[in-house]
Amino acid sequence: MSFTFDDLKKENLQPWTAYIEHDFVRQLGAGTLAPQAFRHYLKQDYLFLIQFGRAFALAAYKSPTLADLRHAKAGFDAIIDLELGLHIDYCQQWGISEQDLSELPEARATLAYTRYVLDTGNRGDLLDMHVALAPCLVGYAEVARFLIEQPTTVRGDNNPYEAWLAMYESAEFQAAAQAERAWLDERLADITPARFKQLSRIFNDATRLEIDFWEMGLNQQM
Amino acid sequence: MSFTFDDLKKENLQPWTAYIEHDFVRQLGAGTLAPQAFRHYLKQDYLFLIQFGRAFALAAYKSPTLADLRHAKAGFDAIIDLELGLHIDYCQQWGISEQDLSELPEARATLAYTRYVLDTGNRGDLLDMHVALAPCLVGYAEVARFLIEQPTTVRGDNNPYEAWLAMYESAEFQAAAQAERAWLDERLADITPARFKQLSRIFNDATRLEIDFWEMGLNQQM
Amino acid sequence: MSFTFDDLKKENLQPWTAYIEHDFVRQLGAGTLAPQAFRHYLKQDYLFLIQFGRAFALAAYKSPTLADLRHAKAGFDAIIDLELGLHIDYCQQWGISEQDLSELPEARATLAYTRYVLDTGNRGDLLDMHVALAPCLVGYAEVARFLIEQPTTVRGDNNPYEAWLAMYESAEFQAAAQAERAWLDERLADITPARFKQLSRIFNDATRLEIDFWEMGLNQQM
Amino acid sequence: MSFTFDDLKKENLQPWTAYIEHDFVRQLGAGTLAPQAFRHYLKQDYLFLIQFGRAFALAAYKSPTLADLRHAKAGFDAIIDLELGLHIDYCQQWGISEQDLSELPEARATLAYTRYVLDTGNRGDLLDMHVALAPCLVGYAEVARFLIEQPTTVRGDNNPYEAWLAMYESAEFQAAAQAERAWLDERLADITPARFKQLSRIFNDATRLEIDFWEMGLNQQM
Repeated sequence: MSFTFDDLKKENLQPWTAYIEHDFVRQLGAGTLAPQAFRHYLKQDYLFLIQFGRAFALAAYKSPTLADLRHAKAGFDAIIDLELGLHIDYCQQWGISEQDLSELPEARATLAYTRYVLDTGNRGDLLDMHVALAPCLVGYAEVARFLIEQPTTVRGDNNPYEAWLAMYESAEFQAAAQAERAWLDERLADITPARFKQLSRIFNDATRLEIDFWEMGLNQQM
Repeated sequence: MSFTFDDLKKENLQPWTAYIEHDFVRQLGAGTLAPQAFRHYLKQDYLFLIQFGRAFALAAYKSPTLADLRHAKAGFDAIIDLELGLHIDYCQQWGISEQDLSELPEARATLAYTRYVLDTGNRGDLLDMHVALAPCLVGYAEVARFLIEQPTTVRGDNNPYEAWLAMYESAEFQAAAQAERAWLDERLADITPARFKQLSRIFNDATRLEIDFWEMGLNQQM
Repeated sequence: MSFTFDDLKKENLQPWTAYIEHDFVRQLGAGTLAPQAFRHYLKQDYLFLIQFGRAFALAAYKSPTLADLRHAKAGFDAIIDLELGLHIDYCQQWGISEQDLSELPEARATLAYTRYVLDTGNRGDLLDMHVALAPCLVGYAEVARFLIEQPTTVRGDNNPYEAWLAMYESAEFQAAAQAERAWLDERLADITPARFKQLSRIFNDATRLEIDFWEMGLNQQM
Repeated sequence: MSFTFDDLKKENLQPWTAYIEHDFVRQLGAGTLAPQAFRHYLKQDYLFLIQFGRAFALAAYKSPTLADLRHAKAGFDAIIDLELGLHIDYCQQWGISEQDLSELPEARATLAYTRYVLDTGNRGDLLDMHVALAPCLVGYAEVARFLIEQPTTVRGDNNPYEAWLAMYESAEFQAAAQAERAWLDERLADITPARFKQLSRIFNDATRLEIDFWEMGLNQQM
């Protein structure tokens, strides 16, 4: 039997929609999100990125072939050598210094999602880990597309979060998400229904933990 | 320099006290906790136990000596061969069938604490993992002793949670917690201040995630 | 496409036959194996068992379901609670004390096969690890059946290795090996040719490392 | 109590000397090593490098701080982005194509040392893994210095292995090895005698497995 990434979404439509269309997302699109909520989110997103770096390092370790290892390494490089620096720059624009970032404790929602991904990777294989990463890697691209279509979304200088939006709607980010979907679809094409059920549970857990990440931002929780 | 388990508590007094003396705990001691809150907690505690089984299996794998492996295995056996069965029996007294338990999804608070423990174990050594487990293994014994001393605590048939209380105040459980403290103290005696700081961060994270587990029960969250 | 354990053997017939019909095996069956070679093998087999215990603990940690975890635990219990003790007793009959065993360094062939199994388990999933374990779990049963059919095999008091032979030809051991084959066949039934190729490489590596274990015994190498 | 890398060598002088001054090394220095032995070694060294890449990826995953993660990543980058390419080029000079390399099975000695390092890393912490890596990272620099001092060593165009020698005696490689020693010395300064004993066993195992790697080359074994 053959499955696709869309089947994972269909099986988990309620949490997936709650995640993509979350109030944090809507308020960010409308430019009405409280700046301190966004700042809290940004700071935790930095800690999140470091753990995502660890996840791609784990994927490299677990790779069965040199091609898989290079694929995981490309993600690891992008996170640690590029995105982390961009994130630090962007934080500075919001008045958050690198020193602040380095001393920050992780919020529960950050611990929860990142450690779930890492344990899922250790427990299973590369496909398990990628499914746990999908709400982040594929989901953010979908969030951007959702916002573009909303009449309430404000673009340009009138929205303090324009740079965030522009980043995730960029051709580059959308292409990366599309590549991740293609990677998943290729592997999901070969699995049994029992395996799909397992992966669907992982996708459900990961999506719920991503919702909590928005909640954590919205309510400025640690 | 020499450290002890008490130093971990002293460094993290605020979250530790918030955990030991949590409203879920107080209401349970007073017998006023909503039965559906307790039932929700019990069900998630079952899923928690399975993940704790995985943690002790991981500890066995990571053991540097046969003695360490046998020590980890004793904990693994206790969880899977004994406590899981007791838990299923106790759940049945509260109207929760084994079938219910087997189909249950994990709440976020369950995912968060258990996966944090497992990743901490994989990332570091046995001491890292035991420090992450301490809020559970040592903390529950302290919760029981805290409740015994509270004037608001109700004992006997007038408290529907008497069996829960009796279990954690039992000589057997208290001795197990004491043995865990002794194990920790032995290893903490040899560490550097930099290592203590690392372990204290783990203890802080784990304690905060245990608070969330009470919250999850109290508010019946998934 | 559907595969079976026999396909793994067919794909790797040369090393598999070299392993099952190794000179160490033949000499053991004929009772002509040098006692010091057998003693060396016995001592390393004890260290091998401890690492196999770690492998089953790892399998328990990696199990996606409670049923899988209990299955792995049954193997772990058998090794640590039963076989290790039997092995110590048997070693004593050959003049090897438990003290000797506890101080023994691991020979290269012991390090090689056991660590290969453990890394394969960490890198992949339960099926990868079981395929790496198969030359041991299934292979020893086949070794016993091979020896029974050889005209050169000597049975009873005239063969100092009778107890070893009797153990591996016992109904109990043969049934355990058969159960392992059935477990493998069930999972191999669902895999793609690309996945089979991966698993066949693991089976090939593991079989070659088992040959080295016989060689290590025969030549009393460290 | 305070230990250094030299203490690890002193405790394991016999295998360490057997490794540094191995016949493979001496013949390579004298230019008398059989070209097919060198070619066999080169091919396996390529597979070894890929596994070392996995080891540094694992170190990145296991890093307790961002600084540790960046340190591990620098090693990972050097191996995968630089050394692997240099190795492929050097192999081509010896008539070994990249296609040959990609289809090669791993020799037992390659499996043994690399999987020992990886399991040691998973089982313990970063220090355990670095001690397992030290015979390679620090040892090769010592091999080069040993050869420079030998009267039998031939330099320049009269030695077909001149490029190999020049690489490992280069200021760059010697400095990298020196940095690794300094990293180890810093951490060994803080450990207990019991921990040193544990690490010394790892160093002993790893050194013996490196000797086997030379043997594998010398005897062209799979």
